[in-house]
Amino acid sequence: MDEFDLIARYFSPLAGRSGLGLLDDAACITPPTGKDMVVSKDMLVAGIHFFPDDKPASLAFKALSVNISDLAAKGARPHSYLLGLSLPEDMDQIWIEQFADGLAEAQKYYNIELIGGDTTSTLGPITISVTAIGYVEQGGMVRRNGACIDDRIYVTGTLGDAALALLGIRGECKLYEDLLECYHRPVVNSVFGQGLCGRASASADVSDGLIADIHHICKASGVGAVVNASALPVSANAARIIKRDSKLAPLIWSGGDDYKIVFTASAENGCHLKRFAKQTGVKVTEIGKIVAGAGVDLVDFSGQQVQIGTEGFMHFSKGRRQS
Amino acid sequence: MDEFDLIARYFSPLAGRSGLGLLDDAACITPPTGKDMVVSKDMLVAGIHFFPDDKPASLAFKALSVNISDLAAKGARPHSYLLGLSLPEDMDQIWIEQFADGLAEAQKYYNIELIGGDTTSTLGPITISVTAIGYVEQGGMVRRNGACIDDRIYVTGTLGDAALALLGIRGECKLYEDLLECYHRPVVNSVFGQGLCGRASASADVSDGLIADIHHICKASGVGAVVNASALPVSANAARIIKRDSKLAPLIWSGGDDYKIVFTASAENGCHLKRFAKQTGVKVTEIGKIVAGAGVDLVDFSGQQVQIGTEGFMHFSKGRRQS
Repeated sequence: MDEFDLIARYFSPLAGRSGLGLLDDAACITPPTGKDMVVSKDMLVAGIHFFPDDKPASLAFKALSVNISDLAAKGARPHSYLLGLSLPEDMDQIWIEQFADGLAEAQKYYNIELIGGDTTSTLGPITISVTAIGYVEQGGMVRRNGACIDDRIYVTGTLGDAALALLGIRGECKLYEDLLECYHRPVVNSVFGQGLCGRASASADVSDGLIADIHHICKASGVGAVVNASALPVSANAARIIKRDSKLAPLIWSGGDDYKIVFTASAENGCHLKRFAKQTGVKVTEIGKIVAGAGVDLVDFSGQQVQIGTEGFMHFSKGRRQS
Repeated sequence: MDEFDLIARYFSPLAGRSGLGLLDDAACITPPTGKDMVVSKDMLVAGIHFFPDDKPASLAFKALSVNISDLAAKGARPHSYLLGLSLPEDMDQIWIEQFADGLAEAQKYYNIELIGGDTTSTLGPITISVTAIGYVEQGGMVRRNGACIDDRIYVTGTLGDAALALLGIRGECKLYEDLLECYHRPVVNSVFGQGLCGRASASADVSDGLIADIHHICKASGVGAVVNASALPVSANAARIIKRDSKLAPLIWSGGDDYKIVFTASAENGCHLKRFAKQTGVKVTEIGKIVAGAGVDLVDFSGQQVQIGTEGFMHFSKGRRQS
């Protein structure tokens, strides 16, 4: 099966109108009047970002989620994506078929369509490169650089589930099914993300670990932050694991792979957004405050500084290899 | 050096306004009124599309050229690109520096800017994934599906140079410096490409081999084509190689990696485009005609059918491995 057969069989059925059936050299998008286009690109490499034997359908869903997560954090409504896929030559066709099934499911869930891409062979690991495109009102993208002193800091969902699942896979803590699901198949609520426009002063997706991502916001905004460790939202099973082994607590705030949204807003806008979160089925928790200065302080309920730890997801320094 | 240092040091200096200094989760583009966005994505994998020891600056230039080639064939004016880069963990910093130099040179040449991307490590070969974005007037993109019976077929530049260079590198024919340059550092004339809008009835970039790419046009347009082998434009050194060994002739029409444009147009529009080509310093050659039916016939000066050969660039069936 050559590149063209592969595309015709598995990927053309996923193509939307802008993708021209994947039968042209490029996609063609007519941007809606008065909108800005928000574009994100994330790569996933087997052995670095996922296990080579991860289920292909979940992996496909995740590959789209991690990109939709970037769009959601910017307040953008997802529109379409391009898929780059490098596969070993002896790749099982059933793998490709199930991968395409996972894409189809994610397309339906996020209401997006495939518009183009490239399929090649590789002598190395499976490599997935997604470029996702979304829209916001012109000038409406929520940046990282708008956090103001006294803004509150909020985060969606619960933290550390994926990182604790990864530890569980390695046999270093108990493995819970719901945490595993967070790791293998993160789901993003992009409708809530769209509500951030005009309300949140700054926002980022939590993928490098909460503290690292708040740090990005602080650096871009020229401010500091105080985050309350005891306020951080944790799932029941994550809490169980940490109760058993308290030295795993840093994974909550620096574990990575959460695909949640951390944002800052005035107390008033924060209230609005908490109401909107309820309407869209998202849990939003206030976890801290923007302050003058620089850097992120993590404190416990008594105001004592908590050691952050250094588990953030850094590809080049100590890439969290998975095989 | 972690991912963030790498981006700050080598890639942020290349970022344009829409890229927000590569300091945000996504790029933000305000599309010009009345334009369509044309988006192309190509992946280059070491050992498949380039030699691992190819010069990094040329490789970077080529990675952009192969994407600009898609845009040019669609009549689009290049605007920006996103870069996905997976690198082995022990990657030499000098390599990265020279790669960034090559990007800078290509950005200047094509008048485009970096707006985002992703940098990861890999346990496998260097993998480069570029997403290029350009503009055309709304509805103006030159598709593959507009070729009409009696349209003439034209191609830019000369054919087979890169394929013969690759053969030369393998020691299977004489290696000429100018052919090597075509292989390592293809250059696209995107100004000529923009002139295709409203004049060419169909167009594709020649990357899979001329006949394969004409075949794509014919299939999309529901027509057939007759191509004159003796009219195909060949460089002086490519002609020398083929004169010495005539069985290499099929590389001219099916070698791949040309990054030229093959287009169809009425005889009248073809004349216009040949004049425009002269103004923009591009060689355009008439090589055949669109006919009723299906498939592509290659004929010699006496009208006899020429054997096409099967050297087209097919990644999955017999990926043209380079190492």
